[in-house]
Amino acid sequence: MWKPDRHSRQPLYEQIADHIEQRIAYGEFPPGSLLPSERKMAAQLGVNRSTVIMAFDELRATGLIESKTGSGTRVSTSKWEVAPKHTPNWKSYSEGGHFLPNLPFMRKIREALAQNPSLIDFASGELAADLAPIDEIAALMSEHRYTSYLGYDNPQGYVPLRQALVGYLEKHRGIRATEASILITSGSQQSLYLITQCLLSPGDAVAIEDPSYCYSLPMFQSAGLRLFRLPVDRHGVRPEDVRALYKKHRIKMVFANPNFQNPTGSVLAAERRKQLLEVASELALPIVEDDPFSLTAYDGMPPAPLKSMDEVGSVLHIGSFSKIAASGLRIGWMVAPRAIAERLADARQQMDFGLSVIPQQMAAQFLSSSYFDPHLERLRMQLVFKRDLLVEALNKELPGLIRFAVPDGGLHLWCKLVPEVHDGKLLEEGIRRGVVFVPGSVYGSDSGFVRFTFARARTEDIAEGIAKFAEALKDTLGGA
Amino acid sequence: MWKPDRHSRQPLYEQIADHIEQRIAYGEFPPGSLLPSERKMAAQLGVNRSTVIMAFDELRATGLIESKTGSGTRVSTSKWEVAPKHTPNWKSYSEGGHFLPNLPFMRKIREALAQNPSLIDFASGELAADLAPIDEIAALMSEHRYTSYLGYDNPQGYVPLRQALVGYLEKHRGIRATEASILITSGSQQSLYLITQCLLSPGDAVAIEDPSYCYSLPMFQSAGLRLFRLPVDRHGVRPEDVRALYKKHRIKMVFANPNFQNPTGSVLAAERRKQLLEVASELALPIVEDDPFSLTAYDGMPPAPLKSMDEVGSVLHIGSFSKIAASGLRIGWMVAPRAIAERLADARQQMDFGLSVIPQQMAAQFLSSSYFDPHLERLRMQLVFKRDLLVEALNKELPGLIRFAVPDGGLHLWCKLVPEVHDGKLLEEGIRRGVVFVPGSVYGSDSGFVRFTFARARTEDIAEGIAKFAEALKDTLGGA
Repeated sequence: MWKPDRHSRQPLYEQIADHIEQRIAYGEFPPGSLLPSERKMAAQLGVNRSTVIMAFDELRATGLIESKTGSGTRVSTSKWEVAPKHTPNWKSYSEGGHFLPNLPFMRKIREALAQNPSLIDFASGELAADLAPIDEIAALMSEHRYTSYLGYDNPQGYVPLRQALVGYLEKHRGIRATEASILITSGSQQSLYLITQCLLSPGDAVAIEDPSYCYSLPMFQSAGLRLFRLPVDRHGVRPEDVRALYKKHRIKMVFANPNFQNPTGSVLAAERRKQLLEVASELALPIVEDDPFSLTAYDGMPPAPLKSMDEVGSVLHIGSFSKIAASGLRIGWMVAPRAIAERLADARQQMDFGLSVIPQQMAAQFLSSSYFDPHLERLRMQLVFKRDLLVEALNKELPGLIRFAVPDGGLHLWCKLVPEVHDGKLLEEGIRRGVVFVPGSVYGSDSGFVRFTFARARTEDIAEGIAKFAEALKDTLGGA
Repeated sequence: MWKPDRHSRQPLYEQIADHIEQRIAYGEFPPGSLLPSERKMAAQLGVNRSTVIMAFDELRATGLIESKTGSGTRVSTSKWEVAPKHTPNWKSYSEGGHFLPNLPFMRKIREALAQNPSLIDFASGELAADLAPIDEIAALMSEHRYTSYLGYDNPQGYVPLRQALVGYLEKHRGIRATEASILITSGSQQSLYLITQCLLSPGDAVAIEDPSYCYSLPMFQSAGLRLFRLPVDRHGVRPEDVRALYKKHRIKMVFANPNFQNPTGSVLAAERRKQLLEVASELALPIVEDDPFSLTAYDGMPPAPLKSMDEVGSVLHIGSFSKIAASGLRIGWMVAPRAIAERLADARQQMDFGLSVIPQQMAAQFLSSSYFDPHLERLRMQLVFKRDLLVEALNKELPGLIRFAVPDGGLHLWCKLVPEVHDGKLLEEGIRRGVVFVPGSVYGSDSGFVRFTFARARTEDIAEGIAKFAEALKDTLGGA
């Protein structure tokens, strides 16, 4: 990102005006488009707002931009349009299309993190840099000189990775699969996207857990699906609720995250698993089992997946490396009947022509290497350590103000705030104090919950982050 | 892929029956699903059809599968369903969803290549293994030990790659862009997919070239767009046709591939470029410029892109490494107004959570390295060599039977067959003789055209491949 040169003889505001003029001339901001606000631009460039105001004044004086009270500053059209030339109305194009943007809270968090990388991050649902097997992957990369063909890959994914996953699924998840029934995806997100786009139609009813990660994904709404809720308690969803939703709404699919559920951390009780599978087979109802967290089980005993008990073929099983190795590999998978795997592979070819073979090779090598099991063990130990730091900090900073169950696996802790508090104000206040987290309403719950991801923040920042959160909470309450 | 063991004491048909039983038990073929035909399975396993028939007989005898004349062989439901258990009707799920499957010809070609990798491939629109910079990438991988954070990447793509592309676009394409106006995609395919999904709505009219690669992509139909044709002659599309389509159908966007157009190889004439941009600005109409082939210009003088002459910001410019470096990197980009780049990045996060950072780093290193320019030079020389081999073979084998213009860039040669011939029969006959190519109707043209990709086949196979094609053509004509 460009920054003005503080040692230059040219005044800062002039440098900024020149820079904006260049960005306009280069097409980043076409005629008629809205510029970032003075406040936002000042934050990005690390200067005072008054400096940006001077730069804008300069540009306005030359007629390059124009401002209207209440509607921001735009690139002027008169200056740039010789005679009757017209720029497409990009604003209307970007607001057209049926594909919905991400939730405002999620965009706010992403923007805050982009503007200030020193925020303590309890929001991003991923591992910290030092939990990912970077050294192991670097070692594998230097052991295996790259020699493969770099063409388009098999539409279902790189065959040696699918073969390695057959072994992985049997050893670690008790699932017997064939390579032809595995589709490699760029992560659970793509698996869910393909299912909602290709196996369901607008108007179809589906059941999702409440609260659940699925609520944070506008893709369900973009696909025109009708969503019905399966409340999650400490032991997961209740199978009889599935039957009730089927009777009432003819749901066509159930989306579940049975192990260390995101965000609640709950594990579906053994008896309920059996019943859920019985209901599914009684109703011939597919279950999409999202299973990214199981191998983080802190006691080293991952709960069995539904798929391992699935006798009639009701379950589409989704897995990923993102939460147990590195999200930056962008490698996930789906175990499905062959006809489904082929159908989704065909659709994915049209969307992105498949994944790069390079991270797939790395994932296959890593899975088959002697590094994998020790990595998992180290990961579990460090996650417990971080969870304990978080629990300790919460108990110290917020006694009586919060309630939570201590999770036995996963990356998240789900917290009920005892006092009533405004989600948005609390997030705003948190960002101001240097900490981000995800308001529970993002996951479809009522206001007053928070998801803390303890895996992402640096160990040494956890206590400080919760201290900042406590201040933000108290301020929000005080100001309310 | 599993194959029976010919040295085993167990008869082949028994091994095959056991293997199919295992695949059924593992969920690859759930109860009620269709098994591959005896003929197809025999080809996959490399055995006689009679062996597969014996294996199926064995499985039928145990009640595991059942056959009905004319509707193939299915996994039986009675055997697998204890009491009133039901498998979801996966067939109806896989045929549901509004997302259309790939064109039958494209699936047929893919299937033929998967079953018989020794086919001479004039169909896959990509570079041969020895044209990709594999040694260069291997060298860069061993020079730069991997140390980066492997977390989720910036939604618009890896910043150093976008910075490298700013330099690339200026130097090689005469386009001045800022990193904030670049979106990294997994290739042109994803760029097109994002545009059709997010900037257009069902029912919108758009103009695409005829013939064009766009016709081979059911994604336009899946998005509910109404397609109108811009005929391509030797000098590309005619700008007045755009105006006429706008008047008649209020087209909302134009998709064009001005340089070495796929499949015709034509280059949009200089005068028409100017007019096209004038029409676009007069009508405030966006042009999507797909520009993957320019740097293959055999004389080393790539035609300028529309974007470099775009004064009012009408053009979304799409580029890719697939045709000039390696499709297996899965790296493309789009240059767009910032608001559009951000909108598409947000949507892409929901679809796949972005690209792996690893191939992006490799691409950035490769672009910035001293390997890039010599690679391009070598690529151009080898493409000319291959093109000349193809032209020579066509002139030798099919004098008077075909007509074509010799392309000055790109990977393809577009051929008119003089005699009338049935597209599907010709392809079938070609596959039988060991050669694949793409029937022109895939690109929306009338029957009687063929696209030969000369970049993909091995140099030593080109003459033989065309000899096989000539036999296939003569046989098809003889039999017609």
